[in-house]
This record gives sequence, C-alpha cells and structure tokens, in this order.
Amino acid sequence: MGFKFSVLQTDNQTRARLGLLETTHGPVQTPVFMPVGTQATVKTMTPEEVRSVGGRLILSNTYHLYLRPGHELIRGAGGLHRFMGWDGPILTDSGGFQVFSLGPLRRVEEDGVRFRSHIDGSEHYFSPEKAVAVQEALGSDIAMAFDECAPYPCTYEQARAAVERTTRWAGRCLDAHRSPEQALFGIVQGGVHRDLREKSACELLELNFPGYGIGGLSVGEPKEMMYAVLDFTVPLLPVDKPRYLMGVGSPDCLLEGVARGVDMFDCVLPTRIARNGTVFTRRGKLVVRNAEYARDFRPLDGDCGCYTCRHFTRAYVRHLIKAGEILGIRLTTIHNLYFVLRLMENIRQAIREGNFEQFRKKFLAGWQA
Amino acid sequence: MGFKFSVLQTDNQTRARLGLLETTHGPVQTPVFMPVGTQATVKTMTPEEVRSVGGRLILSNTYHLYLRPGHELIRGAGGLHRFMGWDGPILTDSGGFQVFSLGPLRRVEEDGVRFRSHIDGSEHYFSPEKAVAVQEALGSDIAMAFDECAPYPCTYEQARAAVERTTRWAGRCLDAHRSPEQALFGIVQGGVHRDLREKSACELLELNFPGYGIGGLSVGEPKEMMYAVLDFTVPLLPVDKPRYLMGVGSPDCLLEGVARGVDMFDCVLPTRIARNGTVFTRRGKLVVRNAEYARDFRPLDGDCGCYTCRHFTRAYVRHLIKAGEILGIRLTTIHNLYFVLRLMENIRQAIREGNFEQFRKKFLAGWQA
Ligand SMILES: [Zn+2]
Ligand SMILES: [Zn+2]
Repeated sequence: MGFKFSVLQTDNQTRARLGLLETTHGPVQTPVFMPVGTQATVKTMTPEEVRSVGGRLILSNTYHLYLRPGHELIRGAGGLHRFMGWDGPILTDSGGFQVFSLGPLRRVEEDGVRFRSHIDGSEHYFSPEKAVAVQEALGSDIAMAFDECAPYPCTYEQARAAVERTTRWAGRCLDAHRSPEQALFGIVQGGVHRDLREKSACELLELNFPGYGIGGLSVGEPKEMMYAVLDFTVPLLPVDKPRYLMGVGSPDCLLEGVARGVDMFDCVLPTRIARNGTVFTRRGKLVVRNAEYARDFRPLDGDCGCYTCRHFTRAYVRHLIKAGEILGIRLTTIHNLYFVLRLMENIRQAIREGNFEQFRKKFLAGWQA
Repeated sequence: MGFKFSVLQTDNQTRARLGLLETTHGPVQTPVFMPVGTQATVKTMTPEEVRSVGGRLILSNTYHLYLRPGHELIRGAGGLHRFMGWDGPILTDSGGFQVFSLGPLRRVEEDGVRFRSHIDGSEHYFSPEKAVAVQEALGSDIAMAFDECAPYPCTYEQARAAVERTTRWAGRCLDAHRSPEQALFGIVQGGVHRDLREKSACELLELNFPGYGIGGLSVGEPKEMMYAVLDFTVPLLPVDKPRYLMGVGSPDCLLEGVARGVDMFDCVLPTRIARNGTVFTRRGKLVVRNAEYARDFRPLDGDCGCYTCRHFTRAYVRHLIKAGEILGIRLTTIHNLYFVLRLMENIRQAIREGNFEQFRKKFLAGWQA
C-alpha cells in the first residue's frame, strides 16, 4: 500500500481544509490530532480506549523506542503495530527533537549526533541514516526526517545553520529510505524568521517529500508569534501535501492552526495535564484536584459525552487523584483526549458545512486560555 | 431488600458447598472471591473492567474511606455504590484490622481505639458504634463487626483477651446497627487455639449474625497451620450461614479454603503482585518483569482467555512495566483477577458437577506455590 493525501474541501474564509490521508494501515480524515504514545502506549490507555475516544492516527517516539525496548526487539515482534496491539496508522518522529533536547548529554557533528541515554547513560549515535533505519524497523506508516530543531530563543545565525543542516540531513534521509509502505516527511525549520522559513521550505520542496512537518514552533515562543509564523510559512508549502504542525495540542491553538491551513497535530499536553489533575471544559481548563471540587457531584464537563463524564463526578475523580489512585488519571486522560478529538471532529464537520469560521469564533469566545 | 443465603449443593468428599448470597444489590454465587477496592476503586480498574473479569461482589475498606474522602462525603454522593459507579454488591470491612495494624499510632481502650491517621497524623476514634455508623453511611450490602484481631504470633492470653473483647464489641455493633438493607457479619477470632475458636464461635452464634467472618488467619502463620485451624473452626459455624475467610487469595489457599467449607474470600494479593510485575499461570507465579521474558512473544498464560492474554505478549507487558507505563500494571491486574475469578467459577462448576475433589487435586498438582 502506498501513501496518498487528498484535499477534499477548502474553507472560503480561512485556510482551513478537509483532507484524507491514506496509509498502509488505513485512512485518516484531516485535520487530525494524534495522541502521543511515547513508549509504545498512549499513557494509561489500551488501544481500544484510544480508538473509543476517537483516536485514529497515533504518534510514537523513535528515540524512546530505540533505547527501550529497542527497535530490533520491536522488529522481532512483527513491528510496532503488532507489538503494541494498535492496527491503525502510526507516525513516528525522527528522534531529532529528543536528541537535541538532551543538552550536555549530546554532541552534534555534521554526520550526526552522539548522545547519552537519559535512562542509563549509555552512549549512542544517531544520524539521518540511523533515524530512518530505526523507523523502518518500527514499521510506522509515516516517518519523519532527522532534523535540527533550533531552540527558542536563538540567534539568526543558529537558526540559519539549523535550516541548512536540516536540508542536508533531509537529503540523506531520502537517500537512505527504502520502505515503500512508509511515507517519509520532511521538516521545515527557520525559527521565527520569514526568510529562513522560505529558504527551508524552498530547499525541502525540491526534495519532493510526500508531506511536510513544521518544526521549531511551540518551543516556548508566545502563541501570537507562532500564529504569525504559520501565517507566512503554510503558504510556502504545496497545497496537495499534508502539513503537520509538531507539538501543538491546546484547543485554541488547534483551531488557530486549522484556520491557517494545518492538517496534522500532535501534543502530549492533553494527556500530561490530565495526569496532573487538570481537565478541559468548554470554558477552559479546570483543576479538578482543587479542594473546591471535593463535593462537586457534577461531571467534569456537562457538555461532554465521554466515558468519564457519563459515569463519574468531579468529587470522585478528585478523590482518586488525591488518593494517588491510577483510575483517577485514567479518567482524566480519557476525558481530555475525547475532548480534543471531539473538537477535531467538530472542526471537520464545520469545514464540511462551510461554517468553520463561525465555529472557531464561538469556541474561542467561550474559551479562557 | 433483605439479605439471604442459601446452600444449593454440598460436596460429598469435602466440605465444599455451592451457595447463593442475595443482597440489596443483587445475587452472588458462592464460593466467591471479592476483589479489593480499598479506596473506592479496585486499583487501576474501571467498574466495567472489574465486571468483565468476573467480579460480582467487591470489598472496600472502611478505615481508608473514613479518612479519605470521608464517609459523610460519600453519603452525600448517594452512597459508595453511586460514588464509585459500581452497582453490584459491596462488602465493607470494619476498619478494625487496619486500626490495630497502626501499631504505635493507636491506643486500645475498652470503649474503642484512638488512632492517628497514616495520611496526615490527625487524631481519630473508632468504636463499635462508630464502625457501624460509618459503614451505614457508606451503604455497603454487607458490613463487618468491629473486632480485635490479635497478631501472629501472640500469647494465649492475648488471643483470649481479643476473643472476649471481640464478643463484647460484636454485641455493641448489633445494638447500634439500624439499616435493614445491610447485613452485619460477626467475626470469629481465637488465633490458632482450638478452645478459643470454640469459645468465640459459641459466643457469637448466640448473637445470631446472618454471616460469619473467620478473622485472625492469613496474618503470617504457615499455610498448613491455617488449614488446620479451618479444619476445626468451620464446623463450629452454622451450615445455613455464609463463612468468610478474611485476607485469603492465593489460588492454592482458595482451593483449600473451599474444600474446608469457606464461602467467601478477599485478598489484595492478586492485584498487589500484579503491580510488582508478577502474574499467575497454571503452573504458578511468573515474574514477567524478569529479563528472560524480554523477547517472549507468547501471552502471559497460554490457557488464559483474559483481555491481556488475547491481545498482548509477555515481551510487551514486560516493556511497559520496565518503562513505568501504567498500562503494564493494568494488564497484569486484569490477568491476575481474571485468573482468580475464573478459578472460582471453575470451582463452582466442579462442585455442581460433583468432581470438586478431582479438580482440586489436578490444579494443585500443576501448581508451584
Ligand atoms: Zn468528559
Ligand atoms: Zn490472562
């Protein structure tokens, strides 16, 4: 099976679009949010639960799986899908972001990055070729090129160097990539600089990837700055290829990203804040572990149809979290992922019905960030 | 609804029997194993999952719920069933065992026990009347009398004093108990001493409880000693009332308990060892977190039909546990509870079909304790 992307419909008032990704493990409607399964599991959830909250395409992390349990073990298990019991599509990142985040534990060379494991300090080496080989062993449907993500803030020179290295490494990734069942996406870098985003997009488009990640955003810059960068970056990308904004997942940012023409998102935010006892509601975040909810016998969100909201109260969820019971963070995780995935479904429906801009304004008017 | 117990069938070769408990929240077939939901949740599981692995009657802990979130809060939520979303029957212990286990944090008087919370050191007081009131607020289907459980080992004098206090407190519990929807069981003490067990049973039978716990066992004594105590204690109890062996849950002990005429069991063992990465198999325990299972792509137990064994391998479960992923201990918990509850189902079927003794011998021959 090959990879295919089709734009089905384009919004009149914004850059939003409805699309269909076809992968080796089935089709996915876009715009799509990908739940993150860092270590071959979406934290706290079974594959059935991920599907039941609306998850269709999940992301897993090459760096983590390479270190533990190891990509060769996963290859031996029949690939990541079989290993973790998920028969839907999977996207893997390249490991670049994690490796660059290791700070003093890594050393960057032109050929690749030498780093120490955050688990046991053992020494490892990642190169574009290695990142591709590991992702092929995992057998993901979509692999990402090994890139250099410059930090925020950084100097113009740093950002330019990261763009240039990302381009060189992108070419090496393409040369190394073999699997016809796996699509390999390039990643546009360039920080907050318009000319660098243009340079990066221009160079990567020449390599003709089947899809493009937008990297180097959601790394600490203000949201308004991220939106401005999207405003000038998305139009640089081909209309007929999927655009993936990496690391974005708060409801307001999802809406703003879709409005600017993004098709794919991933983020640990919904699941991470759930484990801290914070949940999404129509009005914004609610810290259900706070004392004020001790005797609140209403659901987390009165408008929500998730398993948690259909069966349990804020008081019970709070009790579980205060008592350190795993069911508590299971229930908040289910709710938050359902909330975000339901939002994406509503976004797709709004685009389909031609009222996305109205939907966006109404949602954001009720949302307190 | 009242409480009713019927013996449906008695085994010819052993004291095993098949029974039916009828409670305010529905019927339960015996012999039954009760999964433990200490803090208003069977650790890691939703109520649906508890039911799907075969759980019908669960146990919850009065001491823990009294301290957090508080029995008045649970009463305000509409009782423990509604609070935790479990509509099947619930048995609550009296808190006695936990309070006596607090060691230096408690002081025993004739009226009751003064103790400090293990959570925040706050001071509290439990008496027979208080233990009954708290359990009535929780609204469990079966409540237990507030007893004194002597430690093992202890002197004969200690064991006798505990028996006598347990009898006095049992009378006070009965006097205080009001709820017609809740059955109150007495608890036979007496340690390993035959005459003290006789004394305790004799005194409690005069109070005519609708069911009897057998306390003070599974507290550190050798298994053979526990079996010997059961051999002389169970025949002291009325044939037409349920007998509940408290704190027992390993597969071999369940079989031996049933053979000696026990109808009800509870234990944290299956769920606790699951969280340490140990699972039951037909041949005994298996420590799936051990390195030897890293590349073992078989299910936890080839004979098991549980969700975990139908979908995942030892290698995957081990990876999750080594990586600290919650799904790992969810999967081992599901398997271990299913294993024990399925064993109970097989035991009931064997009694029904008149071949319990055969079943017991065959299982124990394959089991390595
Ligand atoms: Zn919800
Ligand atoms: Zn199993």
